[in-house]
Amino acid sequence: MKNISIAFQGERGAFSEEAALKYFVDDNIETVPYEAFKDVMRAVDDRKANYGVLPVENSQEGNIDEACDLLLDFDLCIVAEIKLRIVHCLIGHAGAEIQDIKKVYSHPQGLRQCRNFLNRYDWDRIPAYNTAGSVRMISKRNDKTEAAIASERAAAIYQMKILKEGIENDIHNYTRFFALSRPGMRSLTSSEEEKRAMKSSIVFATDHVPGALYDCLGELAMRDINMTKLESRPSRDKNWEYVFFVDFEGSLEEEKCRSAIDEIKKKASFLKILGSYPAAEDFEAKP
Amino acid sequence: MKNISIAFQGERGAFSEEAALKYFVDDNIETVPYEAFKDVMRAVDDRKANYGVLPVENSQEGNIDEACDLLLDFDLCIVAEIKLRIVHCLIGHAGAEIQDIKKVYSHPQGLRQCRNFLNRYDWDRIPAYNTAGSVRMISKRNDKTEAAIASERAAAIYQMKILKEGIENDIHNYTRFFALSRPGMRSLTSSEEEKRAMKSSIVFATDHVPGALYDCLGELAMRDINMTKLESRPSRDKNWEYVFFVDFEGSLEEEKCRSAIDEIKKKASFLKILGSYPAAEDFEAKP
Repeated sequence: MKNISIAFQGERGAFSEEAALKYFVDDNIETVPYEAFKDVMRAVDDRKANYGVLPVENSQEGNIDEACDLLLDFDLCIVAEIKLRIVHCLIGHAGAEIQDIKKVYSHPQGLRQCRNFLNRYDWDRIPAYNTAGSVRMISKRNDKTEAAIASERAAAIYQMKILKEGIENDIHNYTRFFALSRPGMRSLTSSEEEKRAMKSSIVFATDHVPGALYDCLGELAMRDINMTKLESRPSRDKNWEYVFFVDFEGSLEEEKCRSAIDEIKKKASFLKILGSYPAAEDFEAKP
Repeated sequence: MKNISIAFQGERGAFSEEAALKYFVDDNIETVPYEAFKDVMRAVDDRKANYGVLPVENSQEGNIDEACDLLLDFDLCIVAEIKLRIVHCLIGHAGAEIQDIKKVYSHPQGLRQCRNFLNRYDWDRIPAYNTAGSVRMISKRNDKTEAAIASERAAAIYQMKILKEGIENDIHNYTRFFALSRPGMRSLTSSEEEKRAMKSSIVFATDHVPGALYDCLGELAMRDINMTKLESRPSRDKNWEYVFFVDFEGSLEEEKCRSAIDEIKKKASFLKILGSYPAAEDFEAKP
């Protein structure tokens, strides 16, 4: 019996599931699909799943806002960062060829990440809620003018044909995921992973005065802590004010990181620690 | 004959057209729809339109990444900021009532901005490329189980029925637009507007060293220049590096702003000035 369950958003064959399977390699793992990012968070929070995997950023398209906002709404901890190389495939019916295609379905991000390829054709581009889900959908209809954009794995799962592989705009297309657990849950850190550099993530808000953000970032800069990401999201309390998601190198077990956080906390109107975790290596996504 | 043309993205009745009509009140104005944000920019750049209007940020959902990225790709200037209160309506056929609805179409942002209302119903939510376009689409089919989410104005234009008005999650739902022109074009600034405070926008990249962003922001902070927005977007050159879009209070005609920019330019690996413009007042969007 599988006894470690990992929640992911989408349908079987989704890139999130691929990220989960690349990272969690234990035999005891089972991946469980959920419809929405929020359902993934709730499953972990409600102890229905041990871990959840959420995409937070794409190297070409930027932040995945909805997922980041959920890090604020739920009190889960980031236990790992996963980077997955995203290889998109054009997927159709067994008897179809590229010249038969008239409509292509995928998640809006999938359509955008393949726009250079799609611009060569006069196909209707139809946004769907999930890449793998759009493969499943067209697999049930027997229309060889329909194609979907998703992973090689999704094509295999739904027994559909890959018409063209590697149609993403850029071969440097990576998505970054967080693996999340309830606070206090042990991470499944391997000994290999323990040797990696650590990163930490926080989110905070500042008072609406000149230099407030600058002062907070100064606590990292003066300690030579390298900020790897700064993302602003709208505050829920007040229009045109923001919360800031910051990732930096180092672990909150290190004194200099802890003291930086303590000082930012004094200056910020709000601060939440999202976790410290081993920095990801870039995985090639090939099933 | 109308001789000032304003390009907007979407179809007649789009919120972008509404923003254009609220801001440009001259009788000589005509609004011209374009399919994509990029087409709007190109129309202005190619002198097919005098101005373009692009949504850049929503107060609830945050940055509109695709539009911001185009500010980098084209050499147009921001001549005005427009803030529009977004009132979403559920729109259906003349004979339809809310209980008939089974499917609802809108731009993904429209669906998200109304999710609290939509969560009360078991309707299929189908993403479309444009709010007003989804009204036009359902208006052509005679299926009273279909509804769309768009503006009151879109309902009027396509002669459809408003089933429910004001279904957005939050009554503080505003979208911020930029009006853009070619460099050197005179803005249509009214005398009322000339009394308003000015804002400026820049975009820059830093070297990937600790404190680089902090040092750049310091040039604003030390001059008491209030930064109103900081948005990071992926660099096109290198994975997990970023460019920063910064808005601040003040005009580039002021000495202290100019000297801040000059200093940031020395520290940044790249800097582009997007424009100085009168800060918007919040408009209520009611046709």
